[in-house]
Amino acid sequence: MKLNIAILPGDGIGPEVTNQAVKALKAIASEFNHNFKFTTADVGAVAIDKHNDALPEETLELCKKSDAILFGAIGDPKYDNNPSAKVRPEQGLLKLRKELGLYANIRPVKAYKTLLDKSPLKKHIIQGTDISIYRELTGGIYFGEKQTSKDGDYASDLCSYSREEIERIAHLAFVAAEHRNHKVTLVDKANVLETSRLWRRVVKEVAEQYPDVTLDFLFVDNAAMQMILNPKQFDVILTENMFGDIISDEASVIGGSIGLLASASVGDKYAMFEPIHGSYPQAANKGIANPIASILSAAMLLSHFELHNEAELIRLAVEKSLKLNITTPDINSVVNTVTTSNVGDFVEDFI
Amino acid sequence: MKLNIAILPGDGIGPEVTNQAVKALKAIASEFNHNFKFTTADVGAVAIDKHNDALPEETLELCKKSDAILFGAIGDPKYDNNPSAKVRPEQGLLKLRKELGLYANIRPVKAYKTLLDKSPLKKHIIQGTDISIYRELTGGIYFGEKQTSKDGDYASDLCSYSREEIERIAHLAFVAAEHRNHKVTLVDKANVLETSRLWRRVVKEVAEQYPDVTLDFLFVDNAAMQMILNPKQFDVILTENMFGDIISDEASVIGGSIGLLASASVGDKYAMFEPIHGSYPQAANKGIANPIASILSAAMLLSHFELHNEAELIRLAVEKSLKLNITTPDINSVVNTVTTSNVGDFVEDFI
Ligand SMILES: CC(C)[C@H](C(=O)O)[C@@H](O)C(=O)O
Ligand SMILES: CC(C)[C@H](C(=O)O)[C@@H](O)C(=O)O
Repeated sequence: MKLNIAILPGDGIGPEVTNQAVKALKAIASEFNHNFKFTTADVGAVAIDKHNDALPEETLELCKKSDAILFGAIGDPKYDNNPSAKVRPEQGLLKLRKELGLYANIRPVKAYKTLLDKSPLKKHIIQGTDISIYRELTGGIYFGEKQTSKDGDYASDLCSYSREEIERIAHLAFVAAEHRNHKVTLVDKANVLETSRLWRRVVKEVAEQYPDVTLDFLFVDNAAMQMILNPKQFDVILTENMFGDIISDEASVIGGSIGLLASASVGDKYAMFEPIHGSYPQAANKGIANPIASILSAAMLLSHFELHNEAELIRLAVEKSLKLNITTPDINSVVNTVTTSNVGDFVEDFI
Repeated sequence: MKLNIAILPGDGIGPEVTNQAVKALKAIASEFNHNFKFTTADVGAVAIDKHNDALPEETLELCKKSDAILFGAIGDPKYDNNPSAKVRPEQGLLKLRKELGLYANIRPVKAYKTLLDKSPLKKHIIQGTDISIYRELTGGIYFGEKQTSKDGDYASDLCSYSREEIERIAHLAFVAAEHRNHKVTLVDKANVLETSRLWRRVVKEVAEQYPDVTLDFLFVDNAAMQMILNPKQFDVILTENMFGDIISDEASVIGGSIGLLASASVGDKYAMFEPIHGSYPQAANKGIANPIASILSAAMLLSHFELHNEAELIRLAVEKSLKLNITTPDINSVVNTVTTSNVGDFVEDFI
């Protein structure tokens, strides 16, 4: 297969981890005789520094003519702590999601056998957890109208949703549930929010088309609790943008490290693959960043193009590295530990 | 001391747990020679059933002329699953908060020594945790303008904040931190939300008046993760309404049961005390509801009126009941377990 893949390494640890994922993809290409072409472009704080734009036009163009995008991470404290900055790295990511119509962010959460002891949660709580989170990604309070009064003493963000925005991701979630454990849990705050009540209404209707899938409802505050008390109760979680951001980061503790969690952001035309972790600038260039989330994002990319054997091989390589303890310090308590590129090399060699 | 206390038991397990708290308060009154007068009124689903109003005028009037309010819980599934219901139990609670100006919800989270093993989290993670969450309670997306289009296919909720709303609770949080471990963590989503950027700006300014308190910032997604990875890093958490709802329910897993967490909702004129748990209708009238959160809410009520010895005695009684395993099934694994009122009786006798 021929694939044009745009590589957007971004900030902080983004470039290091993305490099390892590219190594894995190259090894796959040579092993399975595929033709993968990689083109790199700037996004985030590096793009602001170079082009004064978190998502330069060339980057967006490249993404639009590529078959898939592999994204690293963005964010830099020099912008976080400057609330009046007009240009911010996050705008690059948010604009990319919006412009490419990547409305569904899919985040698998699994408890790896070899890592059961690394989680802050007790083993019997997490063992066997297998969740797929469907987070709406181009609507809600992220993209609603934002206002600040002239004197700067009043601000507002609008959270809005339309039936179509909810239907399209709901269908993806139900189809996924049909291939999994036949359960969808809608996480919302329908006892307070009008948008949540719309979600409940629309999702109930969509559910009727999937009679073999059970639909459950959970308020987001309760969901934040249940995720820790009993994560095994979940199969597919469906939720809006902001709640999905919070709940999926929280769920990352189940796996033992956020450095393991991959995600796919898909729309009707484009697809982007990215770790759910951030840019962790404090960890950049120290060789301590865990590349597994990025490598597994590459596996999700392959699955997206139905290259299931290829994706499976990457997953196997990752599991092997975990078993052999060829892992970065976040999940490795041995002192003389392995670097980011050591993990990448192992995966490459294994393939 | 003479105190007029309004009792609003509400729905589900609300009445049972509130009864136990009242028993504790009566025991305190007789032990310390106080004059506590209790008057009960309807709120929530019961109030809708009786008066077609989740917060009847008489109830609000009673609250306004009382010195403090002890609140049970509200909510009923028959309203949750009817998204088009015009009258909902939650409106009772939300209106009460707004009308009484209860802008700060204070939620202490502690890992009780005797319950360390009950938490889904590992002992070394939670041991020593002592957090006080300051959640803004009368602003944000809870109270912003809500809209639904005529055809019902579009909905919106407005999240807004003003400088004053942020300042007043920020001062409470910093004063609390001065009496605790001198650290405030502001939880927000300043990389996306305009309101969060306003929070950061205002809280930074307030912080200058408290030079011996350190101010930290954490994005809400990261906070949801850090709460589980390392809860001991927190002292006072300050946050807006919706994030506070999610983060504090999540934090409840640290104590081993949400049935232990009390809260105080205070404003410039009124103060209300309530468990953070909900109405759990499935558990109602079975004698299995944990009354400790409500009993500890009564202790917070006493502290509010500077009755510190009295409050301390209640806390001692609770700790004793935990030590002796006189506890409801949520935190008691022995089969022949204790009922809601058994716990209340023990606390009463102890006092
Ligand atoms: C960087 C930030 C804007 C982003 C988000 O909130 O969506 C990130 O946290 C994520 O989850 O991908
Ligand atoms: C019942 C509900 C409206 C309420 C809230 O979200 O504030 C509850 O969850 C709470 O935290 O007190």
